[in-house]
Amino acid sequence: MRAIELSPTLIIGSGLVGASVGCALTAAGIAVHVTDLVPAHVAVAASRGAGTTDPVAPGDVRLVVVAVPPDRLSDVVASALKTYPHATVTDVGSVKGTVINDLRARRASGLKRYCGGHPMAGSHLAGPVAARADLFVDRTWVVAPHDTAAAATVLDVQELARLCGARIVTLGPAHHDEAVAQVSHLPHLMSALTGGVLNEVPASHLKLAGQGLRDVTRISTGDPGLWRQIISANADAVREQLVEVQAALGRLIDILDDPDRTDADLEDFLEWGRQGTRLIPGKHGTPAREFAQVTIEIPDAPGALARLFADIGEAGFNVEDVSIEHDAEREVGWLAVQVTEAKASELEQTMEAAGWTVRH
Amino acid sequence: MRAIELSPTLIIGSGLVGASVGCALTAAGIAVHVTDLVPAHVAVAASRGAGTTDPVAPGDVRLVVVAVPPDRLSDVVASALKTYPHATVTDVGSVKGTVINDLRARRASGLKRYCGGHPMAGSHLAGPVAARADLFVDRTWVVAPHDTAAAATVLDVQELARLCGARIVTLGPAHHDEAVAQVSHLPHLMSALTGGVLNEVPASHLKLAGQGLRDVTRISTGDPGLWRQIISANADAVREQLVEVQAALGRLIDILDDPDRTDADLEDFLEWGRQGTRLIPGKHGTPAREFAQVTIEIPDAPGALARLFADIGEAGFNVEDVSIEHDAEREVGWLAVQVTEAKASELEQTMEAAGWTVRH
Repeated sequence: MRAIELSPTLIIGSGLVGASVGCALTAAGIAVHVTDLVPAHVAVAASRGAGTTDPVAPGDVRLVVVAVPPDRLSDVVASALKTYPHATVTDVGSVKGTVINDLRARRASGLKRYCGGHPMAGSHLAGPVAARADLFVDRTWVVAPHDTAAAATVLDVQELARLCGARIVTLGPAHHDEAVAQVSHLPHLMSALTGGVLNEVPASHLKLAGQGLRDVTRISTGDPGLWRQIISANADAVREQLVEVQAALGRLIDILDDPDRTDADLEDFLEWGRQGTRLIPGKHGTPAREFAQVTIEIPDAPGALARLFADIGEAGFNVEDVSIEHDAEREVGWLAVQVTEAKASELEQTMEAAGWTVRH
Repeated sequence: MRAIELSPTLIIGSGLVGASVGCALTAAGIAVHVTDLVPAHVAVAASRGAGTTDPVAPGDVRLVVVAVPPDRLSDVVASALKTYPHATVTDVGSVKGTVINDLRARRASGLKRYCGGHPMAGSHLAGPVAARADLFVDRTWVVAPHDTAAAATVLDVQELARLCGARIVTLGPAHHDEAVAQVSHLPHLMSALTGGVLNEVPASHLKLAGQGLRDVTRISTGDPGLWRQIISANADAVREQLVEVQAALGRLIDILDDPDRTDADLEDFLEWGRQGTRLIPGKHGTPAREFAQVTIEIPDAPGALARLFADIGEAGFNVEDVSIEHDAEREVGWLAVQVTEAKASELEQTMEAAGWTVRH
């Protein structure tokens, strides 16, 4: 593998994402230059450690990171390809197909030096004041090469993501856009729909709101101006998802309308929802954690269960779930404890050493 | 006000909610008797401090709390009204209209001694092993008197909720059911719809899932058997909400389909969603917290912003949001810091004492 050299890098757009990329690259020893249409943004980004505001000779620039709002992306990428003739150019936009399509439609030159990217990280704070070198650590960074990107270009963008500490996923632009429609844009719109109907709900009813409603609606408070651009740029893929929801919603209303509906119809619908949710892999793309069950006899003695919980707690085990099983024949109870697979045999041994009976 | 005496109380159904009510009442000095169809549940509930498994003379019982699954509620309430002739009878079900309607349809006797309730608390753990005396502390407990309930009955149920540490909201059964359809059952179904469509999403796309998707789909993993009963019992009110969502979803798809759509159309939709979400009051029914802004000048000197953040942090202020404002005329930057209203003037004084310029 060749040594990849990204110095100097130019960041166009010093908002939260651009400035954070600057901080991460600077921390990795790359010479970073930051720019922005708003002079105050550049000054703040520089003061946060994102790089220098000094100019850079266009012919020297090795990498350009375009971090401007979605509806200006292709303009700025096209002009960067022209202005920085030896640079790899990437962007950090949430939608990838429109950018390459726009660039092709305008016959932009140097396309083999462009490869899109999408770091999937953010903050509820906006702007360069919230910039952090570790914003992308362990987050997904999609590298989305179009079919005429040069291999060296793709390697440069992967190196950028790697230096920012991100997990790299490589997907073509169309696949990327379908995926984010499914896992990001549709959920955002479902959250907005759930929030929107609350406009008609009396305040006395909203007092009953619990954590569930708060979770479902949380992301709907994202900036409408930014999300309008994101969804507009990915309208076809988003529409396809919405039509699927529309069909499922119609089926659900039909179930409620059916005077002959069985318990199973509605339960099947709810089970379908639960199954889909369970397909989401564990946090940060690691596989969903597997749990193992350890089953311990509850002696028929006063306070036995309390002592059992105390012993489990003292041993420092992180209990994920517990349930009681009842042995109808023997009048005895069993406590089923869920722990991570890695901890199960340790828990068994600890409990047996403490005198409890473990079912094997 | 008369002194309300709830001893002895009988709890029918010793799952998480029933056993937790038992623990709270026991802690409050009430004599509590627990029962359940499953002997092991009663034993576990008693071992968790929910009450005694000793029998109680039916004529002595002052309060019966029915905490059985939704589809058995009206049966058990009707039989409790008969068996315990001097007791106030309440339940803890998530839907209130069906119970009183069923009781009336079967001409149950003693209805003036019945008043429904709905403690809005739960846990991701189920069953009496997870029982806690503080499960209801600061949570909402809806007391839902029907129009022929005796005043003394309602007072008993309010006292029960008070002893459990809950915040009492009194709403008629129909209003309650409409409210929970809006703030609980619809969000559950929206979460299930969002999760359900993931069944068709390839695993390589699901790897891009972030916190937003996890938040929206979290509640869809609730027990389909239980939620089928809840939604089935509240089908009319839930259907009304679903039809509103259906109309809004149709409008959204029309916006995406419209070749002449303006930026404003989609942004208006997203803004509508955000506005509705913002109507949700602060956690636990307190009003949403008000924030105040303190604006501090950023001197034009290297490292000024970093020093400013350090000073704010050292003073121990909890910054809710920050943004930079730029003064176009004076080439100066301002840092706008959001803190709770109560803290704003303290922050101003602290920063001025440290030599910063605060804008008033």
